[in-house]
Amino acid sequence: MITSSPLRNGTIPWAMVGGGQGSQIGYIHRSAALRDGNFQLVAGAFDIDAERGRTFGQSLGLQAERCYDNYQALFNAESQRADGIRAVSIATPNGTHFAICKAAIEAGIHVVCEKPLCFTTAEAEELLALSKQHQRVVGVTYGYAGHQLIEQAREMIARGDLGDIRIVQMQFAHGFHNEAVELANPATRWRVDPKFAGPSYVLGDVGTHPLYLSEVMLPELKIQRLMCSRQSFVKSRAPLEDNAFTIMEYEGGAIGYVWSCAVNAGSMHGQKIRVIGSKASLEWWDERPNQMSYEIQGQPLQVLERGMGYLHPAALHDDRIGGGHPEGLFEAWSNLYYRFALAMEATDAGDATALAMLRYPDIHAGIEGVRWVENCVRSADAGATWVDYV
Amino acid sequence: MITSSPLRNGTIPWAMVGGGQGSQIGYIHRSAALRDGNFQLVAGAFDIDAERGRTFGQSLGLQAERCYDNYQALFNAESQRADGIRAVSIATPNGTHFAICKAAIEAGIHVVCEKPLCFTTAEAEELLALSKQHQRVVGVTYGYAGHQLIEQAREMIARGDLGDIRIVQMQFAHGFHNEAVELANPATRWRVDPKFAGPSYVLGDVGTHPLYLSEVMLPELKIQRLMCSRQSFVKSRAPLEDNAFTIMEYEGGAIGYVWSCAVNAGSMHGQKIRVIGSKASLEWWDERPNQMSYEIQGQPLQVLERGMGYLHPAALHDDRIGGGHPEGLFEAWSNLYYRFALAMEATDAGDATALAMLRYPDIHAGIEGVRWVENCVRSADAGATWVDYV
Amino acid sequence: MITSSPLRNGTIPWAMVGGGQGSQIGYIHRSAALRDGNFQLVAGAFDIDAERGRTFGQSLGLQAERCYDNYQALFNAESQRADGIRAVSIATPNGTHFAICKAAIEAGIHVVCEKPLCFTTAEAEELLALSKQHQRVVGVTYGYAGHQLIEQAREMIARGDLGDIRIVQMQFAHGFHNEAVELANPATRWRVDPKFAGPSYVLGDVGTHPLYLSEVMLPELKIQRLMCSRQSFVKSRAPLEDNAFTIMEYEGGAIGYVWSCAVNAGSMHGQKIRVIGSKASLEWWDERPNQMSYEIQGQPLQVLERGMGYLHPAALHDDRIGGGHPEGLFEAWSNLYYRFALAMEATDAGDATALAMLRYPDIHAGIEGVRWVENCVRSADAGATWVDYV
Amino acid sequence: MITSSPLRNGTIPWAMVGGGQGSQIGYIHRSAALRDGNFQLVAGAFDIDAERGRTFGQSLGLQAERCYDNYQALFNAESQRADGIRAVSIATPNGTHFAICKAAIEAGIHVVCEKPLCFTTAEAEELLALSKQHQRVVGVTYGYAGHQLIEQAREMIARGDLGDIRIVQMQFAHGFHNEAVELANPATRWRVDPKFAGPSYVLGDVGTHPLYLSEVMLPELKIQRLMCSRQSFVKSRAPLEDNAFTIMEYEGGAIGYVWSCAVNAGSMHGQKIRVIGSKASLEWWDERPNQMSYEIQGQPLQVLERGMGYLHPAALHDDRIGGGHPEGLFEAWSNLYYRFALAMEATDAGDATALAMLRYPDIHAGIEGVRWVENCVRSADAGATWVDYV
Repeated sequence: MITSSPLRNGTIPWAMVGGGQGSQIGYIHRSAALRDGNFQLVAGAFDIDAERGRTFGQSLGLQAERCYDNYQALFNAESQRADGIRAVSIATPNGTHFAICKAAIEAGIHVVCEKPLCFTTAEAEELLALSKQHQRVVGVTYGYAGHQLIEQAREMIARGDLGDIRIVQMQFAHGFHNEAVELANPATRWRVDPKFAGPSYVLGDVGTHPLYLSEVMLPELKIQRLMCSRQSFVKSRAPLEDNAFTIMEYEGGAIGYVWSCAVNAGSMHGQKIRVIGSKASLEWWDERPNQMSYEIQGQPLQVLERGMGYLHPAALHDDRIGGGHPEGLFEAWSNLYYRFALAMEATDAGDATALAMLRYPDIHAGIEGVRWVENCVRSADAGATWVDYV
Repeated sequence: MITSSPLRNGTIPWAMVGGGQGSQIGYIHRSAALRDGNFQLVAGAFDIDAERGRTFGQSLGLQAERCYDNYQALFNAESQRADGIRAVSIATPNGTHFAICKAAIEAGIHVVCEKPLCFTTAEAEELLALSKQHQRVVGVTYGYAGHQLIEQAREMIARGDLGDIRIVQMQFAHGFHNEAVELANPATRWRVDPKFAGPSYVLGDVGTHPLYLSEVMLPELKIQRLMCSRQSFVKSRAPLEDNAFTIMEYEGGAIGYVWSCAVNAGSMHGQKIRVIGSKASLEWWDERPNQMSYEIQGQPLQVLERGMGYLHPAALHDDRIGGGHPEGLFEAWSNLYYRFALAMEATDAGDATALAMLRYPDIHAGIEGVRWVENCVRSADAGATWVDYV
Repeated sequence: MITSSPLRNGTIPWAMVGGGQGSQIGYIHRSAALRDGNFQLVAGAFDIDAERGRTFGQSLGLQAERCYDNYQALFNAESQRADGIRAVSIATPNGTHFAICKAAIEAGIHVVCEKPLCFTTAEAEELLALSKQHQRVVGVTYGYAGHQLIEQAREMIARGDLGDIRIVQMQFAHGFHNEAVELANPATRWRVDPKFAGPSYVLGDVGTHPLYLSEVMLPELKIQRLMCSRQSFVKSRAPLEDNAFTIMEYEGGAIGYVWSCAVNAGSMHGQKIRVIGSKASLEWWDERPNQMSYEIQGQPLQVLERGMGYLHPAALHDDRIGGGHPEGLFEAWSNLYYRFALAMEATDAGDATALAMLRYPDIHAGIEGVRWVENCVRSADAGATWVDYV
Repeated sequence: MITSSPLRNGTIPWAMVGGGQGSQIGYIHRSAALRDGNFQLVAGAFDIDAERGRTFGQSLGLQAERCYDNYQALFNAESQRADGIRAVSIATPNGTHFAICKAAIEAGIHVVCEKPLCFTTAEAEELLALSKQHQRVVGVTYGYAGHQLIEQAREMIARGDLGDIRIVQMQFAHGFHNEAVELANPATRWRVDPKFAGPSYVLGDVGTHPLYLSEVMLPELKIQRLMCSRQSFVKSRAPLEDNAFTIMEYEGGAIGYVWSCAVNAGSMHGQKIRVIGSKASLEWWDERPNQMSYEIQGQPLQVLERGMGYLHPAALHDDRIGGGHPEGLFEAWSNLYYRFALAMEATDAGDATALAMLRYPDIHAGIEGVRWVENCVRSADAGATWVDYV
């Protein structure tokens, strides 16, 4: 049960790039990072408008001198200070992630970055090499993975409760963009513009979320080939898709489906993952994250509840309030940041044992998301044909 | 509201082929046909074992002389009698449907047949030609289509409540055959044997059910091309599949998905259809058939209930008990038989107007199911590639 | 599994009193009685308007001479015929049940009667004495008790799965009469008129349904004292109540609650029963009758499904279609009539052993409902004070 | 939408009494108070063991000198400091609340206190007088009231969406104490000991939660008389109850029910409130706090979702993350502390206008809970008879 900071070497001085005035995602990052006392916000380059960013930073209690004009200035100045930041979170539009990540790592600063890390696997591999060279943590905010029952699923699958894995059903299919809301809403506009969003809309924006959940639950599963069919139901979004379906053949014969959609009218989120084995299935839905269905063929359906004593210790570790009480997405994010902090501390201490025991969405997770989108787009653009997964 | 028979010209003398001692499907046919007094069971060839069939028929109150050794004898004798049967229901294994249907039509007898009508579209077209020539009704027992809320969906879509149709999500994915239960259970064994089951297992056995629901709800939608990926997770079932996924491109740009599965461990039925339009979605689940979700983007989800005054008259017509009380699959089947009876009466009377107003799963529905399976199998066997829909 | 009639001595000739043209309840009785071939409708006094009743009876295929002007004529004539009726179902307004039941029993005819049997326990005891004297079955249509999972609950409780029983939560709380709909609807009008409805509205009309379920599930439980508070939220209904709450103390210390309501705006039915023991609870809801929750403290919630092999044989006996397929209220009623038929056959044959093994809502169930309403009304009219249960 | 602190006059220096090492409730208080930057934890008397408390406080970053031995020392020292605390939260066992609250108010410190404030209305009135005299805020942590949809319910009821209010159904009925877990668990032990828990167990511990929700939703409703029946199913808990049922008659004719229970085996929480009006009902369940049912009689059920644009501005004010994403109990608590902070600032500024616009569980809420328990106990102990509400 989490009730305080686990860090032995003190709070990590931390900054944000982006996430300024009016940013919802910035608020989530701060809520999660500051929740357990693991990070202390001491600097930032919060806004493309430097003055507005400075005002905002000061409203959060920062010193004016540590509210910087841009990320270059931030990394430059802070890496010179004895009390400078050891970590930074990046909450800027997609197209800027690669450059900022790279600069941070090269400045010796741990990174937490919004997905996607970048737009191509080539870029991703470059970041990986840099992170190894500089021994820096790169965490990616696949926030839903912080929900406790995801750990329970992983453990149950690992110990064979489901039998051989046959089918992985994934979807993230909301309806909020059933119309061209981007015409009126700048926060949505960049998502459907390839310049800022990259080569895909919903595949990257929503599809990679349940994909990452499947990677956590099923670490052994390797995609062999896939096919992807994508559509732009709101025509002005072409070539970016607002709906896509991907079928994946895994090594060993299992099969996976991912439905990525932003035009599923009326659906609030529609993020679900169902793992089907030869003996039983597990199903989890992000809108009711405190429950998970466990269905053994020929037996009554069971509903597992977060925080209960019958769960695996790994699923109880992150409990903050006891079963019955609903936890929400903020707790999931807090759990990620909790692990990011532990990973940064262990990395700084060169503690490989501690690092090996930590599970969190790291740079490999970031790379896998980029790779998957790239393969999906390649298949879709070739007429929804099968492509080998590379 | 249905409380009695609608027939003006009296009860229809009726027989069954198959559906004898211990047959569950035979019981359902009789329950549905006899429910409203539209049919009277007067003859039958209930069993491959003629003596057992005769005993069974007599236990139902039939005269011994009208319990026949086989369908040929049944059709021969009854078509000579002044009081002979006017309709027959066929509840035998798949591989026999074509021959029995054909014989019945040629004997001038209306037919109700289990799906699939036959194994190839060539056979299906032959039955269509015969049914036209002999002016006989061929009803197909897509039983779920008899649920009242299916009519509600059709009417709501027709009047534009959903906007332009974009996506049709279908699935029938149960878990009862997660293991090779057919080794011990003869009733399942023929389903996975191409000799008796035809070219597919789950595509035809379960997938065509939600497919037909989509045809009822969306009569204008035409498949242009499709791709199908199928697997035999229980290896002894190969070449027949126990899991399949089909993606369909419709004329006009809409897209459809069908998940057909018998190894969805723990799932009771998992038959669902979700129709997504530019404004709203409808979702129906056969395990809770008295409710349907109606989700207008940007408004609270609504749950429509069977039997309520706010429904379309077409969805209230078949009400037998008032809202709140649960109806089940037997009522859905009864509603089909009710329409079969009306269609037979109208056909016998040459009443084209009455016929034009009747909706029921007729021979065209039967043909469409066969055609869809044929196209799916063609795609799957070509490596899950796209094939034009023929 | 039920697929045909269980009777050895042939179909029971049967009549109805009431349930004529336009009667929904008459349709349900006929659907249930005729379903399994146990009863044959041969006579009736269907309507207070004799001519309309005769026309209706003939439309059902009866001979004109066996469509009688009233119940007296029906019982008189049929009891003289060699092929006369052996059973009658009574579907008339409440105020007439006692007299018709009494006349039927005295004519040596088995009875199926709508609840309430009568208005006072004195009348009920008189019917009991008569039924014993004449050795006639009196079945009462507590239809929900025919759902298969009610048997499952009974067996689980009997074998101790719940531990010691502590609390029984019951409710039947719909919203259809939130306004004075009776002003426009004659079918509702008599229900709120003490002359025709007796001393209560919702206590008798809906509350006795879950009460009977509790009697089936918990045959040992005896009410020691109760208190009832009742209201007439639609004022014109006074002195009859449209809402009531009853608290019951059972012998041995358990406690029961019954919420009876017709003004629960928006609720379709709201009939639920939850039985809470020292180890676990069971919960069943009549709007989803194919599922039952089983909650063992400290373990995941389980959902039991009708028709599954893990159920007690008593809960599988009445299966007609296999698990996964939804059954509805018509099957529940059919199951009751199936048992009524067996009880009548066993009674006529003097087979006490067979009778002892049969469970169905008999005259004792009818009496208990009357007694409970009487006690509730006595408490309510004394200012919602506690009264000893007599 | 909340993304930062609303305070104009700076962060409020804050301390805790209780909530030390291993305390779950302490963690929740800190999470909520610190979430938005409204409070800064600067002092505390965290533990009955002063040394352990000091160690704990320092682990949270406090100065050793501001980690006090007890609340008296805390209030004494801090009220002398220029930078002393302006607010304190009390998270100690029930029996100590009154004395600590009183001391804090008299020291001129704002208070946030766990319920119950005290054990008798006499004590409660004394606190009220003191809080008025010293112009100090007393907030009570009825945490569930911070969920956004509670505000939505209040606004919908106020504008007449439900029509005249007739019935308020409340329950908080969990199963975690179905056995005498207190024998092994000290954290539960004091709850069933009158010395520490006061005159009731579940009435005060769980029942007052939905009761307070009803006060928020229905501010006009006044209890006229009530009756309460209580039981100790785990006998060693007598005279304190582990189950109770309360029926309340409100002025004007509406009726309320509260089921308070800790032996509802298998139930996770079971906290629900259903408000039934002449036109429609609302229902909310704390285990799925992001949804609320809205049922207009004769129309489809609607499910309102937190964070959606169709909600009342008052229900959107506290949104932190947008609709679809689940919020949990921590957000509800944070929303309370957000309001406590505003109330403290407005009080210190003498801004009566701002104060009048703020809704939060204040001292009146605390008093009402104490009063209700007192009346319930009086009724129960008089044999579950009706008592006038005083």
